[in-house]
Amino acid sequence: MHESSSSNFNDEKYMRRALELAEKARGRTSPNPLVGCVIVNDEQVVGEGYHLKAGTPHAEVHALAAAGDLARGATAYVTLEPCSHFGRTPPCSDALISAEIKRVVVAMKDPNPLVAGRGIDRLRKSGIQVDVGLLLPEASTMNEVFIKAITTELPFVVYKTAMTLDGKIATETGNSRWVSNEESRHYAHQLRDRYDVILVGSETVIQDNPALTCRLPVGKDPIRLVVDGQLRLPENAQVLTASAHSPCIIATTQAASAVKVERLKRLDQVEIWQYNSPRHVPLEKLLRDLVCRGWTSVLLEGGGGLAGSLIQEQLVDKLDLFIAPKLVGGNGPSPLSGLHVKSMSEAKALQNLQIDMETGDLHVTGYL
Amino acid sequence: MHESSSSNFNDEKYMRRALELAEKARGRTSPNPLVGCVIVNDEQVVGEGYHLKAGTPHAEVHALAAAGDLARGATAYVTLEPCSHFGRTPPCSDALISAEIKRVVVAMKDPNPLVAGRGIDRLRKSGIQVDVGLLLPEASTMNEVFIKAITTELPFVVYKTAMTLDGKIATETGNSRWVSNEESRHYAHQLRDRYDVILVGSETVIQDNPALTCRLPVGKDPIRLVVDGQLRLPENAQVLTASAHSPCIIATTQAASAVKVERLKRLDQVEIWQYNSPRHVPLEKLLRDLVCRGWTSVLLEGGGGLAGSLIQEQLVDKLDLFIAPKLVGGNGPSPLSGLHVKSMSEAKALQNLQIDMETGDLHVTGYL
Repeated sequence: MHESSSSNFNDEKYMRRALELAEKARGRTSPNPLVGCVIVNDEQVVGEGYHLKAGTPHAEVHALAAAGDLARGATAYVTLEPCSHFGRTPPCSDALISAEIKRVVVAMKDPNPLVAGRGIDRLRKSGIQVDVGLLLPEASTMNEVFIKAITTELPFVVYKTAMTLDGKIATETGNSRWVSNEESRHYAHQLRDRYDVILVGSETVIQDNPALTCRLPVGKDPIRLVVDGQLRLPENAQVLTASAHSPCIIATTQAASAVKVERLKRLDQVEIWQYNSPRHVPLEKLLRDLVCRGWTSVLLEGGGGLAGSLIQEQLVDKLDLFIAPKLVGGNGPSPLSGLHVKSMSEAKALQNLQIDMETGDLHVTGYL
Repeated sequence: MHESSSSNFNDEKYMRRALELAEKARGRTSPNPLVGCVIVNDEQVVGEGYHLKAGTPHAEVHALAAAGDLARGATAYVTLEPCSHFGRTPPCSDALISAEIKRVVVAMKDPNPLVAGRGIDRLRKSGIQVDVGLLLPEASTMNEVFIKAITTELPFVVYKTAMTLDGKIATETGNSRWVSNEESRHYAHQLRDRYDVILVGSETVIQDNPALTCRLPVGKDPIRLVVDGQLRLPENAQVLTASAHSPCIIATTQAASAVKVERLKRLDQVEIWQYNSPRHVPLEKLLRDLVCRGWTSVLLEGGGGLAGSLIQEQLVDKLDLFIAPKLVGGNGPSPLSGLHVKSMSEAKALQNLQIDMETGDLHVTGYL
């Protein structure tokens, strides 16, 4: 009894380490999942690894390489079911078998319905003991982006915004600098580093003229996407002119001026996605097109019109809201002007609410 | 050393008990403070008491009566400086002296600038040891209403409201039943029991037609106050017709129809306070008049127009806000439409923010 519970305790410890390793590549692996692997032989960690980037070796391969001969008879802790198919790299289940691993502990099955369970079957058929489900909630939260994209072919969309405690994203004169405090705004830049695409509406570009780059010293610029059905954004907008390491995509419609489309197309790092719609960009189609390009996570930064439309169409997964402890009143804009719920009983409910005040602002996250 | 810290520990224990006793009369003592008293002789509690209601004996008198002869040589723990003046009851400092109390521990001095320190002086002059300031923060928070009223002659005003996570107190079609959940609404009724006056604007009466009574089984109906500069409320409004154990006061101006004023005055439990103003009720004057009547705490329940005006005039002390984890969007009303801050840097800041999720809604309180 005692040995078994001690072993359970250690299993959890090693799996937590594998999750921690996986997390290191946050924002870098898209469209692949975050995966971490720890190899333990006789209670000694002999190899660790995580998946760094799509197209490069998987977590198990790194960990096996580090373990070398010590992998023989060892236990491998993997946050996601090892793959059984040839993708851009050979199957990891085969690598674990060849290395003569004795036991594999897997946090979650592959959510891809086409391959789920195959990697585990392959391991078991080779006589390897496989235990599945340890720290499953943590592992599935960690890969919420991957799970959404692989099962729906839609990206995981987070609406990040900041409002005052009376629900305003700007004063009634339009002033919005700044709603949240410096620490909260720093966190917002960290989010930009973690998501593939940053999405705003044309009104936000016209009002605030943001560059939408990531201002962290070692940050990655996300793909910048502006929904602009009538191609209203000014040609000197910072999203078009600021120096960035990622493209800026303008999604528009048949309502766009053909001349302006041609001029913008000639700009460096600018792409125009023109949809065959009369006035409004078809939002679901647009999001599907992002996944086709391999971009699976979207950070929606406003404004309230676009955010409301996306929530109305059930395309938003999560809300990441900073509420500053201050009041401005009046008829300033709200965070979801584009959503139109008629009755309180039909309001869109949020689940798994988390709150903290680490930055001094009230920080609320929840799932739609 | 050891004895001294053990004695400090016990001092704190007895003072906490005195605070707990004081709290029992919450909502019943106005315009008097909440006061509790514990008498301890040789580490035994020999008497306890608290102030129940204005015009009845003070906490010390109850505790001394319970202690009887055991008060001799004992220590008295009192949450507020014992009084030194003849009010509706004789001075408590004299009672403590007569009972031959040896030591008095006081949490806070009387905030009334006219008498502060006199009770303590009187005790010390009789050779009683007096220690002041134990659990002062707790004691002053407990009596925030009394402190505000005695030092400013204005009541302590709390704005209690409920909004969705996107800052709406109703949907854009005006539906507001219900924003917060049942537990949060129960808490709102508890507040009605604890405050002297419940205050709303005429628009809230016209839109929602509330009775503004306290629906707790042992609750006390607060004074109901409607600010209605033009006397627009319908004569069949529930505030006028519902059976209640407290008056309903309508504050209005010269813009009110004289005929309607006369008709309303004839109703049972209804008072009309008509101010000599052309259209808007002078809010600060109105609040001062409440204190003149001995009502020192006001629970403001909306709407956003009146709440905004009161905050603009710096007449609100505290915000008590429920945020329901749901979204309705659109252009529905905001909790502070009557406040008009132009720039984010001039926003009204809240201090001492407290958050909890005990009811399932996000509950935020803060001081203006």
